[in-house]
Parts: sequence; structure tokens; C-alpha cells
Amino acid sequence: MELSDRQEQIIEIVKENGPITGENIADRLSLTRATLRPDLAILTMAGFLDARPRVGYFYTGKTGSELLTEKLKKFKVKEFQSIPVVVTEDVSVYDAITTMFLEDVGTLFVVNNQSYLVGVLSRKDLIRASMGNQDLSEIPVHIIMTRMPNITVCTKEDLLLEAAQQLIEKQIDSLPVVQEKENGLEVVGRITKTNMTKVLVGLVRDDL
Amino acid sequence: MELSDRQEQIIEIVKENGPITGENIADRLSLTRATLRPDLAILTMAGFLDARPRVGYFYTGKTGSELLTEKLKKFKVKEFQSIPVVVTEDVSVYDAITTMFLEDVGTLFVVNNQSYLVGVLSRKDLIRASMGNQDLSEIPVHIIMTRMPNITVCTKEDLLLEAAQQLIEKQIDSLPVVQEKENGLEVVGRITKTNMTKVLVGLVRDDL
Repeated sequence: MELSDRQEQIIEIVKENGPITGENIADRLSLTRATLRPDLAILTMAGFLDARPRVGYFYTGKTGSELLTEKLKKFKVKEFQSIPVVVTEDVSVYDAITTMFLEDVGTLFVVNNQSYLVGVLSRKDLIRASMGNQDLSEIPVHIIMTRMPNITVCTKEDLLLEAAQQLIEKQIDSLPVVQEKENGLEVVGRITKTNMTKVLVGLVRDDL
Repeated sequence: MELSDRQEQIIEIVKENGPITGENIADRLSLTRATLRPDLAILTMAGFLDARPRVGYFYTGKTGSELLTEKLKKFKVKEFQSIPVVVTEDVSVYDAITTMFLEDVGTLFVVNNQSYLVGVLSRKDLIRASMGNQDLSEIPVHIIMTRMPNITVCTKEDLLLEAAQQLIEKQIDSLPVVQEKENGLEVVGRITKTNMTKVLVGLVRDDL
């Protein structure tokens, strides 16, 4: 549903001044009550405004209509990202697995001694490594990790839906959210299929 | 956006007979054109109908407004579920891990010799088992799996959003979709955070 400029103006007026009578809205726009009637009817029917007899119009705060899709299209990674869990590249596979369990995450990000991203460890990487009958406390994670530049990353300003598409296309559970620095990428967050599932549930609960 | 009964009727008429003139719609409802005008204006603005001069009204097929949320609320598991990957309870952990990689899934469902669900194997279960320095080809999966009744299941008639909520609440990646039989639960599908992420992406792409 696309609103006209005038309808947008009405919503703004009611948001700031509601409850407010139709007369009063008309005055502020220098229009007649009659001219506004269809707009007010539409805004009320669409759920943007509500009207109470002898009180006036007030803003429902509802995200009417396909505003929902519009909203969804504008979500950014930073609004939904989780805290990243990182290990350094010389940590053993055994310790990495322990970290994964303690932190209850599905993916670990690997950084070098300057704290820049150098790799990603998925649960699959860890399972594969641990099947090898080797001593897991002897193998450093940099041997088994997926390394730069074969890592898909995103930034906190990226659109949430672009990140979701990356997760699907690359068939991965998680993306590191990074910030570019002079000598590499700093890991500032993670965005996962769990975040996406929560967004889906939240869309309907209206608590986003 | 809630439509009135009359507006719903108008949509039905246009769906079946469009393109159709306003006159014609009014005739079918035994109303005057003037009476219908506000309804037609609202339906057009909201994107349900479109009007072309000298042609008339036609149905856009667009899911207007919060129809999107309404639609989302009605999605069922069966419309989005994936094929389940099952192993029998006497299979070794080693073979289960191999199956997980070959089938490229994050969760395996474990069935007994009657093909009824008895357990679930997550990647975490498999990592934990493979850290134990034991011979993985000697340990049957029923030793390490999460077992009934500690398994959260759903049916294909369940609402997708209920399944999504279960995934979040129980902190799991996947639910078995089951069908009740006389002696147990048959596994007929799986629904995962990947499915949920795809739904999220699809909502905006409008390809659901």
C-alpha cells in the first residue's frame, strides 16, 4: 500500500498530536474536513490510525500493510547480529571444540595475533578433523580451518536479507560481521540462521 | 488492513470477471456506482485492484498489505519441509558421521528396525562422541543419541511459525516431521533453520 504525501503528513500530525480531531488535522493542513475524509477513512481502514468518538484520531503504532515487507527489506545486520566467538589460529582443535561447547555456538572465527580474521571453523570442520584418529590437542586449528579469502563475510551496515541469501547460497550457518582496518578485518559480530529464524518469528509477533 | 464484507465481495467479483467496469460491479451488487466509489478507491490504493481507463478494474494478484503476515501465519510445515535423513540405531557413529557428510545435513534421525523414530543425532552429539578417543566404528549411535521422549517433533500440518519457535526455544537446528502410526512415529520430513532462512528471503522476493 503506497501512501500519498498528504496521507504521510496526516500520519505525522496524528503521531505528534494525537488524539486529535479531524477538524484539527484539516486546520493544520489548511484543508477542509471534507477533503480529508477519504484520506482519514483509508488510513483508519488500513490500521495506521484509529478513531474514537469524541476523542479523535490517534496513531496505532501498527506497521500497516506491506510496510512489513518494506521494513524487512531495510533491516540491517547490526540490528540482529550476535556476539562473535573467536579463537586464535594456534589454539588446538581440542580447545576449539571445548570453546564451541562452552559458548554454545555452531561456528568459531579464527584470528591471528593481531586479532584479524584469518579463518572460520564450522562444526563440520571439527567433526572431520576429529575423525582422523589424531591427537586433537596436538593439531592447531589453522591446519583444518577454512581460510581467507574463501570466507564469506558481511558488515554491520549490510542488509539482513543479503546476509540471509549468502547463508543459503554458500550453504553455511553463520557469517562473520567484520570491520575493515588498515591491516585486515576485525570481527565485530556474527549473523546466523538462528538470527534469521528469530526474525521470522518476530515478524508475526510484531516485536521487532 | 481489514477488509469489509463488501470489499471482499468486490475482490471476488473482479477476480472472476475482471477486467470489469465500476458500473458493472455495482450492478452485480445491486448498489449505485457512487456507493461503491470509496471501496474501489481503497481497494485500488491498497494494491488489491488496479484500474485502467476504458478497460476497468482487474485483480492484481498482489498480496496486499498485512496479508503478508496473515499468509505467513498460515504457512504449514509441509509446504517447506525437507527430506529427512535417517539411520538405524545400530549404525556406528563413524558411519553416521559419513552419512551426515554425504547427505550434507546437520541432523540425523535415528529409527529402530520398524522404522519408527527413537532418537536424534546433532552435530554436537557427534563432535562430543568423537572427542572421546574411542573407536568410532565400534560405538553404535543409540549410545550417544538424544532419545525419545526428549525429542521435539512436529507434524506436517503444524504451523511453520510454531516449528520456528520450537527451534528457537529448544535451541536446536532441526525438527523431525512425523506421522503417528500404531506403534510409533514415522519420520516423513525435517524442518530446519535453513528452511526458515529461505522463507525469510522468499517473503521479500515474493516467490512463496
